[in-house]
Amino acid sequence: MTYCVGILVRDGLVMIADTRTNAGLDNIATFRKLHFFQVTGERALAVATAGNLATSQVVVTLLQEGFEDPTTGPTDTIYTVPSMFKAAHLVGQAIRVAHHMEGRSAEQSAPFDVTVLLGGQIKGRRLRLFMVYSAGNFMEASTDTPYLQIGEHKYGKPILDRSVTEETTLDDALKLGLISMDSTMRSNLGVGLPIDIAMIKRDSIAVDLSYRIDQSDPYFNDLRQRWSGALRAAHQAIPAPPYSTPVKTG
Amino acid sequence: MTYCVGILVRDGLVMIADTRTNAGLDNIATFRKLHFFQVTGERALAVATAGNLATSQVVVTLLQEGFEDPTTGPTDTIYTVPSMFKAAHLVGQAIRVAHHMEGRSAEQSAPFDVTVLLGGQIKGRRLRLFMVYSAGNFMEASTDTPYLQIGEHKYGKPILDRSVTEETTLDDALKLGLISMDSTMRSNLGVGLPIDIAMIKRDSIAVDLSYRIDQSDPYFNDLRQRWSGALRAAHQAIPAPPYSTPVKTG
Repeated sequence: MTYCVGILVRDGLVMIADTRTNAGLDNIATFRKLHFFQVTGERALAVATAGNLATSQVVVTLLQEGFEDPTTGPTDTIYTVPSMFKAAHLVGQAIRVAHHMEGRSAEQSAPFDVTVLLGGQIKGRRLRLFMVYSAGNFMEASTDTPYLQIGEHKYGKPILDRSVTEETTLDDALKLGLISMDSTMRSNLGVGLPIDIAMIKRDSIAVDLSYRIDQSDPYFNDLRQRWSGALRAAHQAIPAPPYSTPVKTG
Repeated sequence: MTYCVGILVRDGLVMIADTRTNAGLDNIATFRKLHFFQVTGERALAVATAGNLATSQVVVTLLQEGFEDPTTGPTDTIYTVPSMFKAAHLVGQAIRVAHHMEGRSAEQSAPFDVTVLLGGQIKGRRLRLFMVYSAGNFMEASTDTPYLQIGEHKYGKPILDRSVTEETTLDDALKLGLISMDSTMRSNLGVGLPIDIAMIKRDSIAVDLSYRIDQSDPYFNDLRQRWSGALRAAHQAIPAPPYSTPVKTG
């Protein structure tokens, strides 16, 4: 499994991805799922992938090198597409071409599915965040729902649902994303450390932060402990349910 | 969808079930999923069902009335089985017979699956909590993992993972179960109010509490608000991530 989340707020974009891959529970490994594509001062894009690792790696390579689309001919690369919208379209094309390269029909595709988060900004254009489905179509984060998740998304969704808005600061978005990742890692062995994090500030046209959090990271360990402690304190502070007395039986 | 949770602690058992059923998003209804089977002073059992509603209703009726098992002949009813283990086996038989009555082969069964939580105590025996799978086999809650969930379990699992132990008080178990239910209802429209709750104290051999929480319930509304507020305060109290300075790009 995998868990990746992108959060797009007024000040910028946060992307977080775990690094655990597994083929069964007895065959786990660490692979980077968060990739950057930068042209200094001109574009800064980040891509996170979930799903089949082989297909994901093909997609990332196709994005870097460009490829021959069977219907439209040679494509741009992720370094040359003129807009984020076109970049999302390119990711969708790359997913379809990767499926084709692997010799699979559409019916076979489920276990080889790959889903992609694409975020970033090209100079003169808006900072945007997209999710590209394994069918190649894509959707965009909005001010109503400023975050997108791929992979094992359920455990970490409640904290985002409750707390993330467009007005959330970048630091808070990163913090909430890390809490969401922590909840996921506690409940799903398929999601694990290290975690890659990235921050792209609006209009900076650069990956302003790229960092790997591992098991010895003092901030993340402290965050996990504080969050656990705060949750314990939070439920302890809620009064006891009043239903026990009087006893009602139905 | 459905969400039901059973929590077995030293002092007793808590069972919580939502009541929303749906056939698509445009056809929702309210049905009770938490059922009691009591013989005063002799047994107190609770059953929660998730999955296909028609099959669930057949299973509950078979448990009450007994049935003819194709291989073993006439069965006990849930009012006459001599132990909780035998009751769990009876639930498994009932699920298989229900599948058979519905004229389905094993291959067809997936969309008609039903999963059951069975908890309770028979006089002179232990209070126990089981989960019965749609194949008819079953497993039991333990001191290591004193809770079992059926239906849409992921959103509400992190709080249970963090906080529920065998030493948790009954009131706390109920409170944590309600927080778990709240997290699930916020993220999945298929799980909704009203919620049925039950408490069976160890060795009381009675359903000590049976209560329905609806939208106007002041305690549950207060719990939801307090929990949201506490989560907000909790993440605000965590220091900002230190990664932003110095900027590291990789």
